[in-house]
Amino acid sequence: MTQEQSPHSVVQLRTALATSSQTAAAIVAEYLQRIAQQNETLRAYLHVCTEQAERHAIALDGLASGYPEALGPLAGVPVSIKDLIDTTFAPTTYGQAKYQGHVPKATAVCVQRLQSAHAIIMGKAHLHEFAFGVTNENPHFGPARNPFNPSRITGGSSGGSAASVAAGMALVSVGTDTGGSVRIPAAMTGVVGFKPTFGAIPTDGVYPLAPSLDHVGSFATSVLDAARTAEVMAGLAPGTWSQVDAQAGTVHPIRAGLVQSLVDAYASEDVSEWFTAICTRLSRERVVAVVGSVPVDGEEIAIHQGNILGAEAYSTHARALANHAADYGSDVAARLQAGRDVAAADYIASLTFQRAFRTTMDGFLQQYDCLLLPTVPVPAPPLGAETVTVRGKSEAVRPLLTRFTNPWNLSGLPAISIPAGTVDGLPMGLQIIGPRGQDAKLIHMAHIIETALKNVL
Amino acid sequence: MTQEQSPHSVVQLRTALATSSQTAAAIVAEYLQRIAQQNETLRAYLHVCTEQAERHAIALDGLASGYPEALGPLAGVPVSIKDLIDTTFAPTTYGQAKYQGHVPKATAVCVQRLQSAHAIIMGKAHLHEFAFGVTNENPHFGPARNPFNPSRITGGSSGGSAASVAAGMALVSVGTDTGGSVRIPAAMTGVVGFKPTFGAIPTDGVYPLAPSLDHVGSFATSVLDAARTAEVMAGLAPGTWSQVDAQAGTVHPIRAGLVQSLVDAYASEDVSEWFTAICTRLSRERVVAVVGSVPVDGEEIAIHQGNILGAEAYSTHARALANHAADYGSDVAARLQAGRDVAAADYIASLTFQRAFRTTMDGFLQQYDCLLLPTVPVPAPPLGAETVTVRGKSEAVRPLLTRFTNPWNLSGLPAISIPAGTVDGLPMGLQIIGPRGQDAKLIHMAHIIETALKNVL
Repeated sequence: MTQEQSPHSVVQLRTALATSSQTAAAIVAEYLQRIAQQNETLRAYLHVCTEQAERHAIALDGLASGYPEALGPLAGVPVSIKDLIDTTFAPTTYGQAKYQGHVPKATAVCVQRLQSAHAIIMGKAHLHEFAFGVTNENPHFGPARNPFNPSRITGGSSGGSAASVAAGMALVSVGTDTGGSVRIPAAMTGVVGFKPTFGAIPTDGVYPLAPSLDHVGSFATSVLDAARTAEVMAGLAPGTWSQVDAQAGTVHPIRAGLVQSLVDAYASEDVSEWFTAICTRLSRERVVAVVGSVPVDGEEIAIHQGNILGAEAYSTHARALANHAADYGSDVAARLQAGRDVAAADYIASLTFQRAFRTTMDGFLQQYDCLLLPTVPVPAPPLGAETVTVRGKSEAVRPLLTRFTNPWNLSGLPAISIPAGTVDGLPMGLQIIGPRGQDAKLIHMAHIIETALKNVL
Repeated sequence: MTQEQSPHSVVQLRTALATSSQTAAAIVAEYLQRIAQQNETLRAYLHVCTEQAERHAIALDGLASGYPEALGPLAGVPVSIKDLIDTTFAPTTYGQAKYQGHVPKATAVCVQRLQSAHAIIMGKAHLHEFAFGVTNENPHFGPARNPFNPSRITGGSSGGSAASVAAGMALVSVGTDTGGSVRIPAAMTGVVGFKPTFGAIPTDGVYPLAPSLDHVGSFATSVLDAARTAEVMAGLAPGTWSQVDAQAGTVHPIRAGLVQSLVDAYASEDVSEWFTAICTRLSRERVVAVVGSVPVDGEEIAIHQGNILGAEAYSTHARALANHAADYGSDVAARLQAGRDVAAADYIASLTFQRAFRTTMDGFLQQYDCLLLPTVPVPAPPLGAETVTVRGKSEAVRPLLTRFTNPWNLSGLPAISIPAGTVDGLPMGLQIIGPRGQDAKLIHMAHIIETALKNVL
């Protein structure tokens, strides 16, 4: 099972359609073939919209031949949608067996916008049940498997989305990210995962996990394709985030603050060395100037993120859990029940911490262009592993995997994970954090770093 | 101890100063004399700013004689400030003995605005400890007493503010209202109490009780004086709320919805009859047209208001309570401890209910000009009473007293209590609820009803 790369970027694909050098029907056929070959093993999709995709492709080809100027910014782009997101044209399971065959009454706003932009929805992507977990091991539908090495987890909760892009079964994908659920699987499968600023993409029609932390995000094989997909879902004009040439001023070198305190506390030795090497190379090339370090207390973050996530998730599921506990996988049920015990005063204190943390981080993002850290402290663990060994100590997988991503849900800052070589033979992601609301600046910086990494890795 | 009325309205007083027909020094002397005569019995003030008030009066008289055009909109107005509100020029106790002599670092924004408007601060008014109670029985400083009948409670938590205005020891006053703490004592002491729309007056420098419900409000002997005081604290141009002549269109008759469901559930027979009689008379005079009834479920309101109030109050006091529980009166300590047991999920559910209730009530306020109900279900109970008998049943005083005021903290709608005769020989307040953000419209309607009541009572 090797990682197949689509031959196209979003822009190339649209141009190919508009100039009739390629048809959407042929593209869809190619993607459906890769799905047929790989999905049984990888379980990236829970549902494939074969007929609809073929029908939409033919309709777009008609438009392309008669009125190419009318093609949308994502014309012909094969996209997978995390199955936490409501669609009327395909069943939406939220990753729970009980919802098999469930058809919501409305399609989520972000998906409607992709359709308006002429993307072709290939199907619904696998996920950790109700997005409440980071391994994508799912007792209802089996685990998603990492295209890079199928004995490894994809990471989660948007593991199917990541795997579909990594294995060429979609060009881009849509996921959600409450504690790292876009960025972690992106890093572990070697693709780009982008979580824009909190609130930039509406969550209407997305099953909530923790509304104070929930983000919609995108996957792609390049920074610009992730940006193009996300800006469409944010309802912005094409290019608002993805047209890096048009951006006023260059950021050169990029003045970066490292979140070294987290790396020192939680990264494996190999990841720590990899991070230092990446920073050194980017500095040597004068792409990045490391100008400082940003202190983040991982334990404090875990407590407050945990209180908010636990309380809000339990609040959402309380009724279903009381009446139908057996519908839930044991790991998610236990996690939800833990949220029942969060006291309101602790929840309020954690929301207060969140506001203060947001202000502090906004301050650092005035000093630095961006923050840099790895996306995950370890590469993808084996399927079924409850613990991994880090610097000789056994660490529980779940809390460990979110250590580097959690803070940016709490702060709401835009964050992107870009593939940056391998550690222990597995993909590794470099995480870049940008200033609030300046998603275009983050994309610009990420694009520069992505380009530089191609030369230095 | 009879109810002395100041001979002046805010506007009359300012005019008298500007035309030198009266001096601020004489006014202050008159108020200080009434304070000297009555405060030992009534305990309206915890601290009187005698020297500062005299000094400010002299300074204002200088301005009045040399440059009367420069006098502010509240020039010379003797005002009392609830001692929950920070002042650097006078100790601020929050109603707790531990804070005796405590001088905050900054004066609250609302008080700064009163000073900028040339009001004369007479002192800090008594309150229920940390505003967490509705009787103003205070184990640290003794109870405030009702000027109308000193064996009765003032109601609370802003009981000192209400008493100071009712007994002519201040012309207007500032209080806070989280579940009725302005309107309840206003009703029970026979003065006007006005709680503007949630958020209209900043709470900076006010000790929080429950930030999702806290309002700053005003007391006066007339609707327009309460409006003038409040609009200054809201940072609005003089007249924005209080210039009723200038308001576009008249509301005649006022199309009112009655909150009869609450009256039927909680009011004493006498209060119920009084309310019906008031509505009948106002209808007969064609001042009000009763066009419908608004269903409010008092039990539901009590649960959700209780969760939010309890959780947020405990959150504010958790540390102090853990380290210095003995500093708190037993009633407030018990109430705070109960807030510790609120689960985060219940708190979140109550915030969700609050949003829905807000929307529902906003809908009714599009149908009706205002809602009408009594301010309290019973007139002022005797000091020390734990229970009162309502329709033959014994009811706990505290939850009973907030039944008619609570919903308008939860909804954030502007609400005003105006004196409207007596029940069982004690003052009774008529409560008028207006549309969100349309405080000017509420004041206009309240002024019309206040004027009409003078003829029909």
